Amino acid sequence: MSTLAKQLQTMEAHNSIFESAVRQLPLPVCAAFGSASQPQAVSFANSARVLSTKDSDSVARSFPHSVRASNNVVLESSGINAKVAQGKRVAVLFSGGPASGGHNVVCGIKHILGQGNTLFGVKPGPKGLLQGNLFEITDADVGAIINTGGFDFLGTDRTKIKTEAQFQQVKTTCRKHNLDAIVVIGGDDSNTNAAVLAEFLFTDVKTDGSGVQVIGVPKTIDGDLQIGDLLPISFGFDTATKIYSEMVGNILQDTRSSLKYWHFIKLMGRSASHVTIEVALQTKAAVTLISEEVAEQRQSIAAIVDQIAQAVVARSAKGIMHGVVLVPEGLIEFIPEMNTLIAELNDALAHNAAEFAEEPFDTKADFIQEKLTTDNARLFASLPAYVVKMLLADRDSHGNLQVSLIPTEQLLVDMVRTRVKEIDIRIPFSAHCHFLGYEGRCGAPTLFDAAYTYNLGLTAGSLILDGRSGYMATVTGLTTGGAPKAIPLTGLLNIERRHGQDEFVIEKALVKMDSAAMRYFSARRAEWAADDLFTSPGPRQLWGPAAYQQPISVALNSGAESLAFKIG
Amino acid sequence: MSTLAKQLQTMEAHNSIFESAVRQLPLPVCAAFGSASQPQAVSFANSARVLSTKDSDSVARSFPHSVRASNNVVLESSGINAKVAQGKRVAVLFSGGPASGGHNVVCGIKHILGQGNTLFGVKPGPKGLLQGNLFEITDADVGAIINTGGFDFLGTDRTKIKTEAQFQQVKTTCRKHNLDAIVVIGGDDSNTNAAVLAEFLFTDVKTDGSGVQVIGVPKTIDGDLQIGDLLPISFGFDTATKIYSEMVGNILQDTRSSLKYWHFIKLMGRSASHVTIEVALQTKAAVTLISEEVAEQRQSIAAIVDQIAQAVVARSAKGIMHGVVLVPEGLIEFIPEMNTLIAELNDALAHNAAEFAEEPFDTKADFIQEKLTTDNARLFASLPAYVVKMLLADRDSHGNLQVSLIPTEQLLVDMVRTRVKEIDIRIPFSAHCHFLGYEGRCGAPTLFDAAYTYNLGLTAGSLILDGRSGYMATVTGLTTGGAPKAIPLTGLLNIERRHGQDEFVIEKALVKMDSAAMRYFSARRAEWAADDLFTSPGPRQLWGPAAYQQPISVALNSGAESLAFKIG
Repeated sequence: MSTLAKQLQTMEAHNSIFESAVRQLPLPVCAAFGSASQPQAVSFANSARVLSTKDSDSVARSFPHSVRASNNVVLESSGINAKVAQGKRVAVLFSGGPASGGHNVVCGIKHILGQGNTLFGVKPGPKGLLQGNLFEITDADVGAIINTGGFDFLGTDRTKIKTEAQFQQVKTTCRKHNLDAIVVIGGDDSNTNAAVLAEFLFTDVKTDGSGVQVIGVPKTIDGDLQIGDLLPISFGFDTATKIYSEMVGNILQDTRSSLKYWHFIKLMGRSASHVTIEVALQTKAAVTLISEEVAEQRQSIAAIVDQIAQAVVARSAKGIMHGVVLVPEGLIEFIPEMNTLIAELNDALAHNAAEFAEEPFDTKADFIQEKLTTDNARLFASLPAYVVKMLLADRDSHGNLQVSLIPTEQLLVDMVRTRVKEIDIRIPFSAHCHFLGYEGRCGAPTLFDAAYTYNLGLTAGSLILDGRSGYMATVTGLTTGGAPKAIPLTGLLNIERRHGQDEFVIEKALVKMDSAAMRYFSARRAEWAADDLFTSPGPRQLWGPAAYQQPISVALNSGAESLAFKIG
Repeated sequence: MSTLAKQLQTMEAHNSIFESAVRQLPLPVCAAFGSASQPQAVSFANSARVLSTKDSDSVARSFPHSVRASNNVVLESSGINAKVAQGKRVAVLFSGGPASGGHNVVCGIKHILGQGNTLFGVKPGPKGLLQGNLFEITDADVGAIINTGGFDFLGTDRTKIKTEAQFQQVKTTCRKHNLDAIVVIGGDDSNTNAAVLAEFLFTDVKTDGSGVQVIGVPKTIDGDLQIGDLLPISFGFDTATKIYSEMVGNILQDTRSSLKYWHFIKLMGRSASHVTIEVALQTKAAVTLISEEVAEQRQSIAAIVDQIAQAVVARSAKGIMHGVVLVPEGLIEFIPEMNTLIAELNDALAHNAAEFAEEPFDTKADFIQEKLTTDNARLFASLPAYVVKMLLADRDSHGNLQVSLIPTEQLLVDMVRTRVKEIDIRIPFSAHCHFLGYEGRCGAPTLFDAAYTYNLGLTAGSLILDGRSGYMATVTGLTTGGAPKAIPLTGLLNIERRHGQDEFVIEKALVKMDSAAMRYFSARRAEWAADDLFTSPGPRQLWGPAAYQQPISVALNSGAESLAFKIG
């Protein structure tokens, strides 16, 4: 075998030149943790800040232990923890879709727990917790996963722990492994679950009557877990949007090179349009749709299509026969008329499930159409066959329509083509569709996400060593060195009606029309539509002069003076 | 407006932090050109190497001027050109699909021509040459485009110059702008066109009876323009495959995180599978199909599907319910039975065009099926409706089926699902499809492509100043500093029958079964299929320890000892 062939074989299984190099990248730590080479756990004390929601009273009644312990007060660090607990047994798990930086959270927890405590990994996700599938995480593991993307070290799943039997299973796992604490790395739903779990495990798990601590860590590429300056962004958002932005930038560069195509690019994000507005700010595509704006202005599909078609027409008058349209994944559900239709469809399908299942395939649409009110029936009938098929597809385990399966981008292309031809038959319109999703969830973290998640891990570990439960770890002040804090989960809970039942939830943060990011985007978009002012933000860099950039929307919304971030 | 908002506005139109930073990257030059800060033109002399093809005699008769001048001998540099021509007027154009590094070719030509000569840009592509749409390229232009991706500085198009009227139009453009030389940056077809143009313009263009020089530069992301050690790879291939490899690596990382999906990823590349084998070597996906192997082994669709299904089944037995399958874009046409079918379909559609056009949409498939021979009719009838629809779609301007429109990856998913259920109904199989294409053509060039293309530009410019015509610029020895050379285009021409006519063509380089890259891939793939040995090669880096990597397949095929390249 040649020298090169031998070398190539050593590079298999996570040992590419890049992966080997990122493991050597230094990780900065917030000043509170002391030195970066040997970070120390901090203690926490109450800050002056108390959180509340419209449902705080109900929450206090349902979460008596947690609320009594925290009073919904935000914690801040009160210096190095002089008497660090020893012998703690801590379990960590990923929950929900993967996001870049998760591995560094694990590394941060492991480093702060040190040799005196034990960290277990749960495989995979909440399901692994129910099954009691735990293993001890070693220093070698941490050395292997540091700064790498994905959740593949532990795997993840979407099991929601909600039944009494499931809670008992968790208790069994805690007892079997003699656990003192659980860290749940997840999004809004998973952190809600962490709050419920914290309350359930607050006391009477161990034989001495004590409980098991539960700490949440804020993850989601969608960026919809935000709590003002306490949590300007969840981890994974920066990496995902930088990956999508590079792809969109490359495609924009292609449009102006090939001079003949429009590209409609759907971007992942189940509800909020944070990902889409960030990619728009990074790339300056010709047209960007923001779901929240569509909902607020009660735009119809026809109005959205017309807006894009008018951009196509205006650009063609200048000889520009190309462009890019950014489409948020969740758009369909934010269009009021579609929303109304989908809601009625959900009901109609639920109430006629048996008959619908027996209906022949060809007549399923007709069968359901008859159950709809006039306006909805009319809209339903006007949609292309492939969209109707999707609208009638199976719901997910939460009873939601899997909107990611609806080819919104193709629907828009087809309708825009028709509209452009109506306006002027001679205008050329040739389009390609893309969906950027899975590509962005598991890439190697940006320096921003790498540093942020490592410090989130140090914070989560410190909270455990400080005996806290029912908090979400956070790091604030990301342009001024960073400060570890803890958000009482009960201070975030609202009551929402889901599937006919009242449920406690952490509200999803949507794009606000009066946010600085939205205002900046609104002020510039007419010029971006009129001409090619796009930029190609390039592949994210881990070394060199372009490596230190936080998300543009986060920088704008937090009033930062530049895109540079500073942790440590 | 905030400080940040002002800063953001200065970043529009190609001024992202990344784009501003890459413009400052130093570019190395081959020793032959002297200093990197002020490269000098080289002269050329015959090497000992003569090129020939099976059709050299016919070529000599059809290209008398070119062959008499070059004798099909490869040129090598013979030292700095002491008497550099002055006052030359040179035009440069892009031809065909964009590829990363094209801008640097322009920069290299401009730098070597210096202040004593004039460089014109042609907009867009061959069409711009016919229209005489030229503008003078300035030093400021070069400063703006250096190291940026895309062909957007000049645009490109796919016009093939072949009619007598078109040749006369080119001559008119040459006379109108008083040109001395034309540089065509393109793939195999465009370089064939350059050879024809060189012969046509060899003499009698200017009033003194002299001609216009034509030089080709080898571009294509497909990697199918290769000439052994004289041209180990065309430019753009490295950047495109590194972009695709990052995406595939991210998705692989996602499969092992989410633990439930197979992803079928189609990779751009009209004919050859060079892109696909490179991405396989970079990522070690579970299953990779190589079109050339399918053709050589005369595999049926059923056999291909079974091969994938067996991997799904074997992995599931180990509890691995996920994986990635890489599919070359051109696969369908390499499957002999499909190839036979498509060929007969092309004939049937051409011979029955009028009737077919009048046939109602619903019965078009039946109409054509009746015109097919038994085996083909049977295969045609067995295909899903959406594939039949594609097979009956319009041909491109060359009369070819637009294979990129056939959802090969979806077809495979559907057939694999059926096959897996046949083998064992209990095995879960959930799959997503992707097509990676446009994302990879216009990204900022890797350091390899940036250095390679800049030196190709220096070489092309030197050839012009040395009075040469009918050559393709190349740079050999990419791991030993690099050496500028010139390949006589007539030495590459073969005669192929296309659309019922004999045409001169440069043969597309396909993946060879006995190449080092294919042998390495074949030796390792069983293990990659059996377990998760994948790597995530990460986003291409322009700075830092992971930035200096040539393509793995190129390194293997050229017998390199490592992945490092060395130019300058």
